[in-house]
Amino acid sequence: MRSWWGWGTVDQAVSDAECAQLAGQLPGLPDTPLPIPDPGDLDLPAPRTRPPASLAPLCSTSTADRASHAYGKAYRDVVRALHRELPNPPDAVAYPRDERDIASLIDWAADAGVAVVPYGGGSSVVGGVEYRGEHPWLSLDLSTMDQVLDVDTTSKAIRVQAGTLGPALEDQLRPHGFTLRHFPQSFEFSSVGGWLATRAGGHYATLHTHIDDFVESLRVLTPSGVSESLRVPASGAGPSPDRFFLGSEGILGVITEAWLRVRDRPVHKASLSVSFPSFHDGLAAMRTIVQSGLYPANCRLLDQGEAALSGASTDGTSVLVLGFESAYFPVTNQLDVAVDIAREHGGTPAEPSRTDGNGNGADDSAVESWRSAFLRMPYLRDGLARMSAIVETFETACTWDRAEELYKSVADDVGSAVQRVTGSPGMINCRVTHAYPDGLAPYFTVIAAGQRGSEVAMWDEIKAAASESLVRNHATITHHHAVGRDHVPSYEQQRPDPFAAALRHAKAALDPAGVMNPGVLGI
Amino acid sequence: MRSWWGWGTVDQAVSDAECAQLAGQLPGLPDTPLPIPDPGDLDLPAPRTRPPASLAPLCSTSTADRASHAYGKAYRDVVRALHRELPNPPDAVAYPRDERDIASLIDWAADAGVAVVPYGGGSSVVGGVEYRGEHPWLSLDLSTMDQVLDVDTTSKAIRVQAGTLGPALEDQLRPHGFTLRHFPQSFEFSSVGGWLATRAGGHYATLHTHIDDFVESLRVLTPSGVSESLRVPASGAGPSPDRFFLGSEGILGVITEAWLRVRDRPVHKASLSVSFPSFHDGLAAMRTIVQSGLYPANCRLLDQGEAALSGASTDGTSVLVLGFESAYFPVTNQLDVAVDIAREHGGTPAEPSRTDGNGNGADDSAVESWRSAFLRMPYLRDGLARMSAIVETFETACTWDRAEELYKSVADDVGSAVQRVTGSPGMINCRVTHAYPDGLAPYFTVIAAGQRGSEVAMWDEIKAAASESLVRNHATITHHHAVGRDHVPSYEQQRPDPFAAALRHAKAALDPAGVMNPGVLGI
Repeated sequence: MRSWWGWGTVDQAVSDAECAQLAGQLPGLPDTPLPIPDPGDLDLPAPRTRPPASLAPLCSTSTADRASHAYGKAYRDVVRALHRELPNPPDAVAYPRDERDIASLIDWAADAGVAVVPYGGGSSVVGGVEYRGEHPWLSLDLSTMDQVLDVDTTSKAIRVQAGTLGPALEDQLRPHGFTLRHFPQSFEFSSVGGWLATRAGGHYATLHTHIDDFVESLRVLTPSGVSESLRVPASGAGPSPDRFFLGSEGILGVITEAWLRVRDRPVHKASLSVSFPSFHDGLAAMRTIVQSGLYPANCRLLDQGEAALSGASTDGTSVLVLGFESAYFPVTNQLDVAVDIAREHGGTPAEPSRTDGNGNGADDSAVESWRSAFLRMPYLRDGLARMSAIVETFETACTWDRAEELYKSVADDVGSAVQRVTGSPGMINCRVTHAYPDGLAPYFTVIAAGQRGSEVAMWDEIKAAASESLVRNHATITHHHAVGRDHVPSYEQQRPDPFAAALRHAKAALDPAGVMNPGVLGI
Repeated sequence: MRSWWGWGTVDQAVSDAECAQLAGQLPGLPDTPLPIPDPGDLDLPAPRTRPPASLAPLCSTSTADRASHAYGKAYRDVVRALHRELPNPPDAVAYPRDERDIASLIDWAADAGVAVVPYGGGSSVVGGVEYRGEHPWLSLDLSTMDQVLDVDTTSKAIRVQAGTLGPALEDQLRPHGFTLRHFPQSFEFSSVGGWLATRAGGHYATLHTHIDDFVESLRVLTPSGVSESLRVPASGAGPSPDRFFLGSEGILGVITEAWLRVRDRPVHKASLSVSFPSFHDGLAAMRTIVQSGLYPANCRLLDQGEAALSGASTDGTSVLVLGFESAYFPVTNQLDVAVDIAREHGGTPAEPSRTDGNGNGADDSAVESWRSAFLRMPYLRDGLARMSAIVETFETACTWDRAEELYKSVADDVGSAVQRVTGSPGMINCRVTHAYPDGLAPYFTVIAAGQRGSEVAMWDEIKAAASESLVRNHATITHHHAVGRDHVPSYEQQRPDPFAAALRHAKAALDPAGVMNPGVLGI
């Protein structure tokens, strides 16, 4: 059973006792966790609109449905839900069975002045599924459209419906020996359509870092008709239609299907971690590895704090986690080259872990424990939120020439904000999650003691400081969390004005009534 | 000295004697080549407009400039020039020195109702630089904006002006040890801005096949202001502005600068060719190689006819040319894996050629002779055109499941058209120039005997048959030659209508006077 207020499933949530334990690490927090409201006890405003009889069977106005679709899963979403602050839930939640249902719902919404917010897994951490305007609104939940419709074993590509969540996708690919290998942290509770609409970041630390790279063609239902791109491996015919809809976050229509490239499941794997005396040395090694033409599947650098927090290192070193994989040939050579580079930059490698061509071999327990911890993190975040700790994760990307200054600058700027807002320094850690020949994607975690009842205001101030720091450092406001509504002010500073005008006019052409997810992308 | 009517430089053009020799292979051609008109003898229509005094010094209305900017370098362009058919040359050719000049020229043009056609190297083979409307028009030649402005040696990226031609770019990168490694066939006579505006295909047969993949950020001067994207290695903030301008072929504005990723010059190389009893077997090998996670820099498959024509094989086999390269580590292992795959599919490898880490070693004479022949081809095409042979090259991409049917279908459809139009079967060859895990990019060459004076009409009919065949086979109308004006009818069949509407509205926002390259992309 899915949690209506927090991450994932109810049975996986941290217990009250665990909450208190988590909070023990942060002085100044309350003794008891915020209680979890029963959705039955919530007093939601009455729905302001009612779909016509023909569409009513697709729609729910139950308190549970409306409450669970009111927010995404950002820290501020979770805290507001825990505080029973749900002043503007969707007036209805629709569960279309197919494109025809979606078209009918949008037609009705356009006529009735109802905003339509596409909802995949609901895992947005940037306000992407939360309408903040004055109109009545409909949350369009695509979860019943969850099928792989075609498998092209020759071209290794699949046609899949947008509402398919990560595990359901992999389950349907497994009998064919295929995998998409797109494993964002939200994997279990995010959808193909959501990944596409937000340009999600996935499994690979290098090369094919975003879902964009796996797209062969998209099918998008706009209020003005269906846009389906030609299914080809590549094209030079005009600006890419797919790249225009990727990242459009629902403002132009609903992505209903996609052809995606898949691959054979890897059986050769080799990985290890390398510790460095300083983050600086680790960065230099990472840069040289990705500039050498190696494409490690895993190439993540943890700074001292992150390494300590995740248990990867307790001696004050920074840790680079390296992993190669292939479905076809051994990858130990590649790992050896990468490790040589790491050594040249002062790194000390741990024992490697390898699997042979049958997928057998010693599991890398460090990698496995990292993976479990990785998937567990959002639950822990919720536990901390229940204790009124402030937790924020934000991520970015910049070129290598700016890397060290960005790292220092963010620590200073966010550190000052945390001190000012909470009265204590809190904790700011960084890991580099993706690496490119010309730059890197750092991911920051901020944890500080908050004050019960003021969590959102405190979070907002720290978030603003973080965003300002990124903009001042010429780093993107988001590498893979999307813009949603929370990142709009910074996004608007970074988006070229002529492109904003182009986007606005394109939206006017495709969504003349302006009902598609108004507010995200500042449009 | 650049040829005003044909490819490249005057001194490289094939002689009259060579023309006759080329034509000897095709029965039914005239005995003598079409003479090369002296631009001084051309009787061009008088310019219909005159830039204001402030801009006049930037503009030329000389016959030589107007004639040489009237067309690109498609077969039909060359033949029309040879026949002195230049009814609609630009009314003026402008040579802006900087963005300010471009802005002034566009402002004037918008006021005066003058169409503006950006011109880089002028190598378009799809009517991209030839205005076909009723208004006066200005050819905007960017050749004086040819500098590398910044080199970021840490991130390995450069800022370069759009008018920079291939050799000038590489010359400026060489002192830094860098190369862009973007070597389209037009390399010597095409520009960075042209590559970007048309999504040009380059050196690499796999992975980074298009210039798109090297773009960090773009600076575009639109009639409504400058669009400059943030310079980051990757971003998930909304739809990519760069991907919207890439392939826009000048309809939204003029690309003036770009930050591009460069790389260290490769010193390790390994290559060889593998012959296959059939094209079918070669395709299977190629598919397995690119689906294995290998990324050969060269992976080109020549069918029987193409292999014979290029001298790669004279025994009726198809030939796969494989090459790996790296600036950092030996690549012989990778070549070995690829060759093993080729063997499993019935291939017979030739002796490999290797260079060590100092770039020393036996040159692969087959690869070198291919490269020279490759760069020589457009000159030969001009020689054949002077003999009134019909020559067309067209290229496409499709998924692997359609590969064999496309190959057969195009041969049938174009073969029938050639027979109908010319009365003889002509020659249709194919090479696969780029390969992807999910598909391939075949490139077709058609040569047939034409009739003097009817060359363009004959070419148009064969071209139409080729384009129809591609569309019917769900293959893109262009993988890397762009849309221009010649491909518009097919492009419009393949472009999703909602995306066309979006593009049209975006153009209206950025170019309200509608003066930017009207007609390309059907907009």
